Amino acid sequence: MKAEIICVGTELLLGNIVNTNARFLSQRLAELGIDVYYQTTVGDNMERIIDTTNNALNRADILIYSGGLGPTEDDCTKEAVCKALNKALYLDEQILDEILNYFANRQMPESNKKQAYVPENSQILKNNVGTAPGFFIEADKKIIILLPGPPHELTHMFNKYVLSMLDSNSNYTIKSRVIKTIGIGESSLEERIIDLVDAQTNPTIATYAGNGQVDIRITAKADSIPKAEALLDDMQSRLGMRIKEFIYSYNNETIEEVVFRMLCERRLKIGFCESCTAGLATSMLTSIPGASKVLERSFITYSNLSKIEEVNVNENTLDNYGAVSKQTAIEMAQGLLKKCPIDIGISITGIAGPTGETEGKPTGLVYICVASKDRHIVVERKFNGSRDGNRLRSAKAAFDLVRKFLLDLI
Amino acid sequence: MKAEIICVGTELLLGNIVNTNARFLSQRLAELGIDVYYQTTVGDNMERIIDTTNNALNRADILIYSGGLGPTEDDCTKEAVCKALNKALYLDEQILDEILNYFANRQMPESNKKQAYVPENSQILKNNVGTAPGFFIEADKKIIILLPGPPHELTHMFNKYVLSMLDSNSNYTIKSRVIKTIGIGESSLEERIIDLVDAQTNPTIATYAGNGQVDIRITAKADSIPKAEALLDDMQSRLGMRIKEFIYSYNNETIEEVVFRMLCERRLKIGFCESCTAGLATSMLTSIPGASKVLERSFITYSNLSKIEEVNVNENTLDNYGAVSKQTAIEMAQGLLKKCPIDIGISITGIAGPTGETEGKPTGLVYICVASKDRHIVVERKFNGSRDGNRLRSAKAAFDLVRKFLLDLI
Repeated sequence: MKAEIICVGTELLLGNIVNTNARFLSQRLAELGIDVYYQTTVGDNMERIIDTTNNALNRADILIYSGGLGPTEDDCTKEAVCKALNKALYLDEQILDEILNYFANRQMPESNKKQAYVPENSQILKNNVGTAPGFFIEADKKIIILLPGPPHELTHMFNKYVLSMLDSNSNYTIKSRVIKTIGIGESSLEERIIDLVDAQTNPTIATYAGNGQVDIRITAKADSIPKAEALLDDMQSRLGMRIKEFIYSYNNETIEEVVFRMLCERRLKIGFCESCTAGLATSMLTSIPGASKVLERSFITYSNLSKIEEVNVNENTLDNYGAVSKQTAIEMAQGLLKKCPIDIGISITGIAGPTGETEGKPTGLVYICVASKDRHIVVERKFNGSRDGNRLRSAKAAFDLVRKFLLDLI
Repeated sequence: MKAEIICVGTELLLGNIVNTNARFLSQRLAELGIDVYYQTTVGDNMERIIDTTNNALNRADILIYSGGLGPTEDDCTKEAVCKALNKALYLDEQILDEILNYFANRQMPESNKKQAYVPENSQILKNNVGTAPGFFIEADKKIIILLPGPPHELTHMFNKYVLSMLDSNSNYTIKSRVIKTIGIGESSLEERIIDLVDAQTNPTIATYAGNGQVDIRITAKADSIPKAEALLDDMQSRLGMRIKEFIYSYNNETIEEVVFRMLCERRLKIGFCESCTAGLATSMLTSIPGASKVLERSFITYSNLSKIEEVNVNENTLDNYGAVSKQTAIEMAQGLLKKCPIDIGISITGIAGPTGETEGKPTGLVYICVASKDRHIVVERKFNGSRDGNRLRSAKAAFDLVRKFLLDLI
């Protein structure tokens, strides 16, 4: 089984956006054990999409398209693919109704009607997060799948429909597991597991570093799911022996998801007092549905005055040690805890950069404190990233500190 | 002049990495006025690189390769391209010396010798940041450029050598401008400018929708920069006449950058009281260096109790109208303004979803209020996205409301 990924969009050819869809589709296909020999990107151009389709039909069994299903005039993937396959398009009244519903009380622009046209003998893939439906077409022993271009729509629809459709087309199973680590650099981590990496055949091991964490993807190939899982279990325990203290998930969770789950299990409420991260940490936690079960309130105390007024930091502490100090971090967390009906208080204060450095307080210096009624821990970290990188690393480090605090690891 | 970008690397086909090289090369080529009709990604496979080369030679004048020049066995871009072009490879002693030098005191792995082989009649592009040199080949009126795959090597070598080589091959200039809009959907926007889109030749007009906003890129081609700029000015003013109320930047700024700039100019301090966005809006503003000039503090009032305690929302208001209501939004913004040393207070309260819907209060319903000492405005919005999509749209809508408030537009 060979697949070809075809991404349609002039914005890709102009370099306006980076092609994350090609990567997402490639990853998922690799996991399914389906080979990808080519990714082709082509503009919103009827003739060139037809050429690309004919090329791909000659060399692949499965063609997956992203993009060009929108309502505007230049969107023509559906039309071009139908021409190449010699298939007609017809108006589907049900889809038209759904698009009308999507617009609810607003007037539907006439051009959106275009999205209700459907290739004959195709299976319609309903789009619950946008207006453009996708399509699954079988023709001359080939499978052709059309998905919309916006990444959140594409990933949603791939996971919802395409995964199970393709799974039955593969004769071996590939299973992957992503082990997530935080607090160790990629090369230090690799040094600890280099013999496993060098000897890898099945499972394979790949590390991906970014934004203050390193993910390890282990991938096993076998003729059954249990056999693949057994291979993964074995490798996972070997990795665990080397780097256990840095692993926060064996299950591809984010660090905030892990903390959210732990807080739910323990029925604990949390609150943040954020300075340099300024809402980022709270925002990460609340991107999880149901976050109101664990988050009560947070303060973004950006000015010194707000640290004094909102969480009762002592003016002398700020004068003597500065806003970016261990002492201020502790008072922020403890003041927060005292003021609000919460069980865990976290504070983050640091210098995100690029400006704000002072003598002895370089860009990237951050203090994080986690406090409960009984105890607190405070840590100093020094990050070397951009402003946004330092803020993200600080927020992640704060979540990891809460995780360790709850596990009594520190 | 048409170019084709060919990225070589099995890691791309497996989705291990995202293809930033294709984007970089596309951007640079667009700026040079060189059309890119296709980007092709192919694995480290001799036969398939040859096929891809032959395809590209049939449809493009310039072929730019990235990747497959490394020392390992699977790297074979140079070899495949030479086969397709019917050119020999010879060992270049000078390059060999340079690679030996690069390894300095370390032992050079034997495999690195492979990198000293050079296509006949090619120009060698020295690599100062890695070991693999690049090549510039002219054959049968086609230009073929081979660059190494690591992004920092590719960008370095493109900027150092390729830019000037290609610039002399282009006899016109391309200039782009990105006009940013918010508060109107892509198809409604296109309806207002459809005659301009239909008639587009030079400048061209393209719209890109995502996350609650629509960007319009206008691109002009001319034989001088001033002529290109004049074409853009003309189109910009025509677009302005149609959709002025939705445009917040003619200069590719984000909505939070525009608001930051306006607050700085007016020397105003701002604060947020966020419920459903829970820190996202404040975090967006503070990702701009120097944000402390305008942000004093913010509250994330997630629970009802925190709305009462922190910004003095009346308990009766919550009982009678609910936390997601115009009345609560107004009290949040006004309470915030009263409590803190700020000039502008913003509140955001809504239902991000997917849970939390109640009778008459659907997912995506959001109220935003902006208040100063003298006046306030409050708006109701209804978004149709995912949880994160609704939160992001809410935050952007809040910034746009501040912009309009400061401009006295509403």
